Amino acid sequence: MSDKIHPIAIVASEADLRKRLSNYPEPFAALMAGREKRPLGDIFGLTNFGVNLTQLSPNAVSALRHWHSKQDEFIYILSGYPTLITDEGETELCPGMCSGFRAASGNGHVLVNRTLDDVIYLEIGDRTTGDSVTYPDDDLQAALVEGGLQFLHKDGMPY
Amino acid sequence: MSDKIHPIAIVASEADLRKRLSNYPEPFAALMAGREKRPLGDIFGLTNFGVNLTQLSPNAVSALRHWHSKQDEFIYILSGYPTLITDEGETELCPGMCSGFRAASGNGHVLVNRTLDDVIYLEIGDRTTGDSVTYPDDDLQAALVEGGLQFLHKDGMPY
Repeated sequence: MSDKIHPIAIVASEADLRKRLSNYPEPFAALMAGREKRPLGDIFGLTNFGVNLTQLSPNAVSALRHWHSKQDEFIYILSGYPTLITDEGETELCPGMCSGFRAASGNGHVLVNRTLDDVIYLEIGDRTTGDSVTYPDDDLQAALVEGGLQFLHKDGMPY
Repeated sequence: MSDKIHPIAIVASEADLRKRLSNYPEPFAALMAGREKRPLGDIFGLTNFGVNLTQLSPNAVSALRHWHSKQDEFIYILSGYPTLITDEGETELCPGMCSGFRAASGNGHVLVNRTLDDVIYLEIGDRTTGDSVTYPDDDLQAALVEGGLQFLHKDGMPY
């Protein structure tokens, strides 16, 4: 058990923003402008999965389109009307809708905000070790190593 | 990869209800009347964690007060005003609030709906193996075995 004192409950929208805009190397990190993440699970000492309250300003995107080899992901739309892009094409989402992205699906996903209003959603992802991430549309690959994700070009060269 | 076809996205409130009211043995299962769970993560083939959209009618409770040995839990309140009970006492929650219950905290938690309106929340829990559940207020203990949770009296006698 951790000795750290955790709050009993919080107002999610008042949680601190994640300090780093993006873990991607450039030029990809700059593409994440307009995306804000508030880590929620960490506040309570959770380690098996992460929960973020994430906001996308108009034109912002959730990530590069990607899929995980071992980790599952889930999103629940709280407000706004994002567009979900997968191999099946585009799906318009609205508040109260949810989607899940299972490990090793081979089907990349990304949310884009093409509206004039902010999009706010919950995103959950587990922290299964040995994960890797495939980005079908970009010259990027990532593998989970000690200390976080290591990003490489598709030919294996480091950024 | 599973051959099963999963939807791209769904309206969470239209997901099917879990058929079984409760996994608890009696007399505890009957105490879960007024609680409805809609499993969401399973619909998308997620296996590492579960997500439910759960509704508590007036006077309903989320569970017996409990804590997990290895699994983390997280809740996000979508509507209504539940009361969270932990070792610290009672905390009134409102929409937009969240809480997390880390594994091995030793601090049992439960939500109760003392209002005249329904409470709706998202609950997330991972599926780490070897989990056990402690119920500080009841003559019950549970351990995760093949096929699900096995429930015993506190003295080890089966129900």
